Amino acid sequence: MKIKLINPNTTARMTDTMDSCARAAAAVGTGIVAATSTMGPPSIESWYDESLALPGLLAEVASGERDGVDGYVIACFGDPGLFAARELARGPVVGIAEAAMHAASVIAPSFSVVTTLARTTGMAWHLAERYGMKRFCRSVRACDVAVLDLDQPGSAARRLIVDECRRALDEDGADAIVLGCAGMVDLVRAIEDEIGAPVVEGVTAAVKWVEALVSLGLGTAKRGEYARPLAKRYDGPLADFSPREA
Amino acid sequence: MKIKLINPNTTARMTDTMDSCARAAAAVGTGIVAATSTMGPPSIESWYDESLALPGLLAEVASGERDGVDGYVIACFGDPGLFAARELARGPVVGIAEAAMHAASVIAPSFSVVTTLARTTGMAWHLAERYGMKRFCRSVRACDVAVLDLDQPGSAARRLIVDECRRALDEDGADAIVLGCAGMVDLVRAIEDEIGAPVVEGVTAAVKWVEALVSLGLGTAKRGEYARPLAKRYDGPLADFSPREA
Amino acid sequence: MKIKLINPNTTARMTDTMDSCARAAAAVGTGIVAATSTMGPPSIESWYDESLALPGLLAEVASGERDGVDGYVIACFGDPGLFAARELARGPVVGIAEAAMHAASVIAPSFSVVTTLARTTGMAWHLAERYGMKRFCRSVRACDVAVLDLDQPGSAARRLIVDECRRALDEDGADAIVLGCAGMVDLVRAIEDEIGAPVVEGVTAAVKWVEALVSLGLGTAKRGEYARPLAKRYDGPLADFSPREA
Amino acid sequence: MKIKLINPNTTARMTDTMDSCARAAAAVGTGIVAATSTMGPPSIESWYDESLALPGLLAEVASGERDGVDGYVIACFGDPGLFAARELARGPVVGIAEAAMHAASVIAPSFSVVTTLARTTGMAWHLAERYGMKRFCRSVRACDVAVLDLDQPGSAARRLIVDECRRALDEDGADAIVLGCAGMVDLVRAIEDEIGAPVVEGVTAAVKWVEALVSLGLGTAKRGEYARPLAKRYDGPLADFSPREA
Amino acid sequence: MKIKLINPNTTARMTDTMDSCARAAAAVGTGIVAATSTMGPPSIESWYDESLALPGLLAEVASGERDGVDGYVIACFGDPGLFAARELARGPVVGIAEAAMHAASVIAPSFSVVTTLARTTGMAWHLAERYGMKRFCRSVRACDVAVLDLDQPGSAARRLIVDECRRALDEDGADAIVLGCAGMVDLVRAIEDEIGAPVVEGVTAAVKWVEALVSLGLGTAKRGEYARPLAKRYDGPLADFSPREA
Amino acid sequence: MKIKLINPNTTARMTDTMDSCARAAAAVGTGIVAATSTMGPPSIESWYDESLALPGLLAEVASGERDGVDGYVIACFGDPGLFAARELARGPVVGIAEAAMHAASVIAPSFSVVTTLARTTGMAWHLAERYGMKRFCRSVRACDVAVLDLDQPGSAARRLIVDECRRALDEDGADAIVLGCAGMVDLVRAIEDEIGAPVVEGVTAAVKWVEALVSLGLGTAKRGEYARPLAKRYDGPLADFSPREA
Repeated sequence: MKIKLINPNTTARMTDTMDSCARAAAAVGTGIVAATSTMGPPSIESWYDESLALPGLLAEVASGERDGVDGYVIACFGDPGLFAARELARGPVVGIAEAAMHAASVIAPSFSVVTTLARTTGMAWHLAERYGMKRFCRSVRACDVAVLDLDQPGSAARRLIVDECRRALDEDGADAIVLGCAGMVDLVRAIEDEIGAPVVEGVTAAVKWVEALVSLGLGTAKRGEYARPLAKRYDGPLADFSPREA
Repeated sequence: MKIKLINPNTTARMTDTMDSCARAAAAVGTGIVAATSTMGPPSIESWYDESLALPGLLAEVASGERDGVDGYVIACFGDPGLFAARELARGPVVGIAEAAMHAASVIAPSFSVVTTLARTTGMAWHLAERYGMKRFCRSVRACDVAVLDLDQPGSAARRLIVDECRRALDEDGADAIVLGCAGMVDLVRAIEDEIGAPVVEGVTAAVKWVEALVSLGLGTAKRGEYARPLAKRYDGPLADFSPREA
Repeated sequence: MKIKLINPNTTARMTDTMDSCARAAAAVGTGIVAATSTMGPPSIESWYDESLALPGLLAEVASGERDGVDGYVIACFGDPGLFAARELARGPVVGIAEAAMHAASVIAPSFSVVTTLARTTGMAWHLAERYGMKRFCRSVRACDVAVLDLDQPGSAARRLIVDECRRALDEDGADAIVLGCAGMVDLVRAIEDEIGAPVVEGVTAAVKWVEALVSLGLGTAKRGEYARPLAKRYDGPLADFSPREA
Repeated sequence: MKIKLINPNTTARMTDTMDSCARAAAAVGTGIVAATSTMGPPSIESWYDESLALPGLLAEVASGERDGVDGYVIACFGDPGLFAARELARGPVVGIAEAAMHAASVIAPSFSVVTTLARTTGMAWHLAERYGMKRFCRSVRACDVAVLDLDQPGSAARRLIVDECRRALDEDGADAIVLGCAGMVDLVRAIEDEIGAPVVEGVTAAVKWVEALVSLGLGTAKRGEYARPLAKRYDGPLADFSPREA
Repeated sequence: MKIKLINPNTTARMTDTMDSCARAAAAVGTGIVAATSTMGPPSIESWYDESLALPGLLAEVASGERDGVDGYVIACFGDPGLFAARELARGPVVGIAEAAMHAASVIAPSFSVVTTLARTTGMAWHLAERYGMKRFCRSVRACDVAVLDLDQPGSAARRLIVDECRRALDEDGADAIVLGCAGMVDLVRAIEDEIGAPVVEGVTAAVKWVEALVSLGLGTAKRGEYARPLAKRYDGPLADFSPREA
Repeated sequence: MKIKLINPNTTARMTDTMDSCARAAAAVGTGIVAATSTMGPPSIESWYDESLALPGLLAEVASGERDGVDGYVIACFGDPGLFAARELARGPVVGIAEAAMHAASVIAPSFSVVTTLARTTGMAWHLAERYGMKRFCRSVRACDVAVLDLDQPGSAARRLIVDECRRALDEDGADAIVLGCAGMVDLVRAIEDEIGAPVVEGVTAAVKWVEALVSLGLGTAKRGEYARPLAKRYDGPLADFSPREA
């Protein structure tokens, strides 16, 4: 089974970290193909960044289809382009927020999301609603760390995240934590040890979720909303993205 | 007052029709600047089309800001890039689905949306939910007409739309109709005459809604989620889209 | 275009203030006809007050219809009698809470309502739900000022309102403010300057919303729930209110 | 215990029928005081009718308070003026739609409302939402019978109602029926026999609900929203309704 | 009329207290038959306790049917086995949480639940949702008292409960209190006196609610979900519970 | 990894079928331990059946804990005792309805549930709500086949299920099917071939979901609602179920 993990931002060192976490989580026989977007923002911290990340992301899904990929992980907590990617893909496409929220709702009566910047908390609430997970979500808390500072040596990021997780448990009554940024993928166990409650991270959760769906023989429904885009000719600098006949 | 009406697809003849309807609806003193996207899909009929329409759309908002535009209409019923556009704009940005649903909810206890392709009905429901208009929306009905066939001479489109509107009134109990495609802008009065119930069209509704907000001195809230995107350097073919310091 | 602004309480000096704000906001060619209710409460601060304000309000709508009025603004934040007024009117009828909430939901991801008395906060939540705006409404806050004290010289009202607006932004995470009382109509700019976030006021918003709907040719849907009341003979002191054949 | 049953329309023969049904349902020791409104519409079939029924209704609550009434039933399925009446009353005030929906939700997993005119179905949905009963309500069906024709000799009303009840059970999957008009009070058993499913009627349900609350020592909460209206001087023909100091 | 009050835990002294409160609340002519479960947990403080309380509870309903009982009260605030009991019973079955929440929603615009252990607050929210009462419920607060300590002489329980009720009124804006444990049945008046707001207790409310339904001739709907269980042979130690042909 | 698959009814041949499907789906290294409940109903087709299935189910979870089981699948579509089982278990516990609905929501914009008896459709809606999956669920359809007839040779069951699946796709607009009974586990591929849309079956989905969670190191949150039951002494025939100190 071949799973493509797509980092929709252009920062390769984030892809590398996610790749190694994904490989550690994958089952024997699962091949992880990690790809970094070749165009657009180096981190996704606004609706604008997300919009401009979509072409690069979708190019990776399109090439994955040509390469016989079995399923995809969209490795950014905003789950950008999830529905568009499903239109392109035969196999399942899972967002890391989607997988993490599903997992958290199964192991705990409620969870809180701890993310980076305050301006992205609205995006997390949008996703929780879209996936039906709003009823489990006690709060979305930001610790005001920039995405690309998460793995800087000497950064206070981990301390700030742990503090925010504790507040989610104590003040909001959450029973588990969902980490709201792909850049936090390697902090899971450390945070879990400190706070004493389950911490769910989406990259690895999504890898396992795709593995499960593929091995169940489940692909994306191709009637209706997730059908392949109609073939048409795009104009200008994006002409290469024109959808073709199947 | 200068209002920029952005057609996020690349089909100029749709822009022209919308432009003349918008001018007819605008108040004395309102200047309409109609723009056709210079890149991406010629019509938006899938999540994929929508994703690839975003760069072209956002480029028009960015240039609008440089030109001192007071407010924007996003002239496609999926309201693509609405939140990203609001991050860029100082003035108000209104989607045509948003404006049409608001208007319909004020003049009628309920409405139905009549749109083009069945695969886009899910998108309309997403918007109804996002705007709080789901409670007014009795149904979203598709008449299976391609967007670009709407204005073909001799097309059966108008007949199919009228039939679907009638079914919405009779079978779903709707009290008014929202036309679910920017390409239907010039059909409003004809349909209204045939069905005997209010028909709301989004392009003109959005123009009036922007006019109203601008004349009230209301612009987009710049704290929190709609703040300007953080300055950063984008990579590859989309480098020109890099957000800059304000 | 003739828009009738109806103050459903009997306090003429509130009507006067609203009238001058409405005129300032109206477009060239829009005539504002401001009317003060001739019977009932001098201010509406309870469900009981609201109930007794309805006959006076509806009498003004009925006379407006005889006078060829094109659209109506109900100028009290509880939007009293909105649905009954729509049954009487051919043109659109807009409540000031409705218009303000719509406007706020377009320019900001969320808003809070700041109103006068704590006992009316439930009413504001009812309206937010009825209009589908609950999802945008972070909180409804009261500053415990009586409606008729709002414009008393030397009143602490403005200070109390500003403080409550600040708390809504800081503690509840609102991005914009909706002023929850028609008596606050002339305070908008001053408050906005102090708090640095958009402040939406309903009287002017509703005037612009009615202007927009009328110029779009949209009137109230006359099938179903908003159809004219059936003709019948009322008894007793309210016999003059008997609905007649159209 | 003294329970006042208020018919908010002016048709005394409806009051009489309700009165005898209420007496038959009341416990030993419960006195029923039935009152017919002395002003306003002879039947309530629109939002306008409802609005003009409020003064007469509230006058009866006010006089009930002077007479030491222990609790009130508002005997019209729109539950007009429920919240205003609660502001006036010390004891409990129950609407017949409220009581009937509560009762139906306890004895059946779902119910449908069968009412008179199609134009009032929206009102029934409003109430279902307000009381939290929307999740139990499968449908609101109208049988297009005018309220005052319900008890005409030879009327087809009963047949039409039974047919609509059957459709609610068979087509909508309802498990019980709520009769949506006070004028149907004496038809309950006959309909129940014909359709073979529980039929809930609100007048008697509300009488029992008030009895229960009064005997539990429960009155209306007087902090917050249901506090007595503030004393103030009303103007014009409604001056007599001015709320006074307690 | 014979109403069976079933304590689904095995602690007879709780049954006795509830029995005497129920008798005091019952109308002349109502016979209360109080039963203590003969198997399972002595108090219900977890989902596990609740699950193991079901056989004992349902055995009491089954024997009640053989004894011609007219209606049932399930006297534990989790309303365990409510739907299963309705399948067995001809008459109405009311849970004490259900009755208390209904009553509170009628006399107050909102309520808070004050219960014993924090781990059961989720259960109370589940019930509020199931009954449509979530919209009235401001908060569920626990005072961390074990159920069986409630009536210990010298226990601090009453003080803790009163403090938590006060916080619900002051901090959460509740207008009334619902006591969230059958063991609090005899504290109602004392708490009400101290906090000055209505306090609703479910055992007595449910008795009155069943009385009302029975005297209205309303039993459980026997089509669909609440139909008698299909006859089948159970195995093992629970064979005696096998449902039989009616 | 050891996963215990618990059939909460007493019919061993259903367990055998599920066991072989689960083994086929499991990863290398996953051991499936299938257990049939030793007490209670042979099939679960009512709330009563479900209630009486709980002791047998929970006994299997308790013994699983003593045997070092890593995670559990509750293999009945009503997901009986899910929360109680989570209180007992250290590892994850997944219901088959829960897993199937999650999976369906990821591969399709909407799904319908096709189940056995009409009386259990309410139960499926309850679960959809509890898991946040109501927004994806177009309908719950019953094909009126008894659970134990599903695998009878010559049974019309498969034909009836396929017909109902087709109606869900065509009439309700579903994009995928969730099979609503554990007894349908071996019909998945055959149905999928006939209807041409994804069919999700819960037993195998839950096995994969538990595998995923266990390999992610995620167990049930032990603070709050899912904490171990408090130790106490149960009475009567269920004394053996008394929760003990950890």
